[in-house]
Amino acid sequence: MSTSEYSLFPQHVIARKRDGVELSPPEIAAFVSAATTGAWADYQLSAMLMAIFLRGMSEAETVLLTEGMMHSGVVADLSSVHLPKVDKHSTGGVGDKLSLPLAPMVAACGVGVPMISGRGLGHSGGTLDKLESIPGFRVGLSLAEYRSQMERIGVALIGQTGELAPADRKLYALRDVTATVECIPLICASILSKKLAEGIDSLVLDVKFGRGAFMKERARAETLARTMVSVANRLGKPTRALLTQMDRPLGRSVGNAVEVAESIRCLQGQGPEDVMEVTLALGEQMLLLAGVERDAGAARRRLLSVVADGSALEKFRLIIEAQGGDSRVLENPGLLPQAPVRIPLCSEKDGVVVDVDAMPVALVALALGAGRLRAEDAVDPAVGIEGLVQVGERVVKGQPLAWILARTMTQAEAQKDPLSRAIQVGEIAPGLSPLVAGLIE
Amino acid sequence: MSTSEYSLFPQHVIARKRDGVELSPPEIAAFVSAATTGAWADYQLSAMLMAIFLRGMSEAETVLLTEGMMHSGVVADLSSVHLPKVDKHSTGGVGDKLSLPLAPMVAACGVGVPMISGRGLGHSGGTLDKLESIPGFRVGLSLAEYRSQMERIGVALIGQTGELAPADRKLYALRDVTATVECIPLICASILSKKLAEGIDSLVLDVKFGRGAFMKERARAETLARTMVSVANRLGKPTRALLTQMDRPLGRSVGNAVEVAESIRCLQGQGPEDVMEVTLALGEQMLLLAGVERDAGAARRRLLSVVADGSALEKFRLIIEAQGGDSRVLENPGLLPQAPVRIPLCSEKDGVVVDVDAMPVALVALALGAGRLRAEDAVDPAVGIEGLVQVGERVVKGQPLAWILARTMTQAEAQKDPLSRAIQVGEIAPGLSPLVAGLIE
Repeated sequence: MSTSEYSLFPQHVIARKRDGVELSPPEIAAFVSAATTGAWADYQLSAMLMAIFLRGMSEAETVLLTEGMMHSGVVADLSSVHLPKVDKHSTGGVGDKLSLPLAPMVAACGVGVPMISGRGLGHSGGTLDKLESIPGFRVGLSLAEYRSQMERIGVALIGQTGELAPADRKLYALRDVTATVECIPLICASILSKKLAEGIDSLVLDVKFGRGAFMKERARAETLARTMVSVANRLGKPTRALLTQMDRPLGRSVGNAVEVAESIRCLQGQGPEDVMEVTLALGEQMLLLAGVERDAGAARRRLLSVVADGSALEKFRLIIEAQGGDSRVLENPGLLPQAPVRIPLCSEKDGVVVDVDAMPVALVALALGAGRLRAEDAVDPAVGIEGLVQVGERVVKGQPLAWILARTMTQAEAQKDPLSRAIQVGEIAPGLSPLVAGLIE
Repeated sequence: MSTSEYSLFPQHVIARKRDGVELSPPEIAAFVSAATTGAWADYQLSAMLMAIFLRGMSEAETVLLTEGMMHSGVVADLSSVHLPKVDKHSTGGVGDKLSLPLAPMVAACGVGVPMISGRGLGHSGGTLDKLESIPGFRVGLSLAEYRSQMERIGVALIGQTGELAPADRKLYALRDVTATVECIPLICASILSKKLAEGIDSLVLDVKFGRGAFMKERARAETLARTMVSVANRLGKPTRALLTQMDRPLGRSVGNAVEVAESIRCLQGQGPEDVMEVTLALGEQMLLLAGVERDAGAARRRLLSVVADGSALEKFRLIIEAQGGDSRVLENPGLLPQAPVRIPLCSEKDGVVVDVDAMPVALVALALGAGRLRAEDAVDPAVGIEGLVQVGERVVKGQPLAWILARTMTQAEAQKDPLSRAIQVGEIAPGLSPLVAGLIE
């Protein structure tokens, strides 16, 4: 056996990262290849992940890791789609249904939106779970179906296929159960490897910070955003990131069917102000990167016009129909799954809503069955929270602060106390910092 | 689910160590229990091992880990053996056959020696592999057979049984393949958990440092020795450590059968000076801890007397016979496995041996088949190196510096160059620092 083969033994590569050495391109390639083929055992991959977590990675290493993971499977070829192709990725938040109104809005502006999303895990919901609450909606398209749909309607909202970035699927599953999720180089490589394998030309990132976000601190979210923007640009894909605040739930609904219903209202011009604010900010950047508008103001006007003239809603109808869903939900949200039990949580006093804490709200939705603790759990599409008050609204005693949608009365009643602790009613409306806190480009 | 159950989820315990927090007793208990029962997946155990490697453990944590691993299986009850019971552990070196002469010598002085040893791995040989080169010798005794043999002859040389410290067996196998071996708290817990489960009253540690040792630097070996002595004493087992130098092979033989033959010569009063020096130093401490002698000088005289009067050799005969081996090897070492090929490596000049580097010698023995790279490999009992010159000896051109014992001529020839690079012949004999470099108590 030659020295070079020996030097790529898993123990040796792990030991070098463990000791804080910058890994060489062949070492990173060996790690990614091993995650794809199973050449390293899971316990070796996870030891390496912990070493990366604690020792970090340089930007050069992160670029190599991302590129290797991107090429661990198929990189979709969308050259037959004659549109600029831009996607959005969010690091996840509570009530974060933005992909649902955003993709049809941007697509209605003449931009290709090849969006491959994930499922919810822990406190944060997933676009796929929400879409699947539309009766018949299929997220499990093959790559051929995906390309064909992109050619026909310029937008697709699908799930990870086994062919894209298989190294990420393996590593993500391990990170989730080995306390190695919150690591910027690993997060960056995980997100970008999947997105860059979709066949996009450019990318907008929604990097959230705050109580309901994966990253609590703005500084850390900003570091992640800067890393991802830099790595993606070095890999030839123009990328920008918005830093957005996630202290409070986005919108008035948290769950699956309830978030679809709220997304439909957004496309009908009746969406909550906060949801629209972030959706428009992300859409502006997507239009600018696609080159279909020259400045943010024009981009915003264009996005508002496709809502106003109904073309964004029609684009959503095309998506639903192309993916086998029942598009009658657009006119009749009652066709979405309905929870058997729906009870109000009422205010105990007159006053003004001074806080709605995203995290306990998310945990209530999770406890009701709207989310999953483990990847193999099923979600209940019908349950969740709707009609949630927002900060600054005046309430009177006995008025519902939210409606709890549950499978059973016992489950609904059990969440009243936890939900009530998430909502503070006081005297004076607080000033709120802007939801869109920064742009990294 | 209660908060306390949730707090013992593997991800949470791993995350706390990852973040440098001192683990609580229930957290360490959860980790050890999981290693024993399989409640955590291997990839979770290995992520935890890497976190421990990089974050370290306090002495309090190390005591808890050691105690937990010791109690993960049976703790042997040798109360029916009416002798003070002392064992020795070595961190391993090249040509380190010391257990073979030491155990019968100490036992011949009226001390119980319940010695449970390991197999060789990588560059360092294992007592069990050496013993198994004696035809018929069984190291795989049950705990009942072990206790019975201790009652009858006061000494046993056996291998790990499945019942002792199963958590260590699991964790050691994972450490070996995840670059988490060289970590003082993990080494300490691994060694002591097994030794303290043997049923001993006290323990002597041979902690080696130098080119052929696991720990290259004396300072690091001393830290390990101090940690182990302190932890073992806190667990109620009086323990001392010798720091011994391992730059050069111990003795003139490296392999399995050849080291048994050299051990027999030690018991016949014809052992190499260096092997006897360290064996006597360890034996002195064992006799002192056992309370059968009051001072080191008296202990040494006692040990020399049991060699001189043949009682140590007779004790070895009893061990071999009790464990099914052919004790005629004591009179006729030709009954040990013989290599088909035996060729000399000859000196290219007149001079004095100025260096024999332990590590390349060990790698030659490994390449010949005397050791194993992976735990599942078999060792060849017959091959190795014998008649190795020692530093300070005068040699003339053409004189053998060593004999290579191999399975085939091709294999033997292939090792001449590597072996010749390990042995330096020069002009002036260097001064040598003492083999026994320190005592930690």
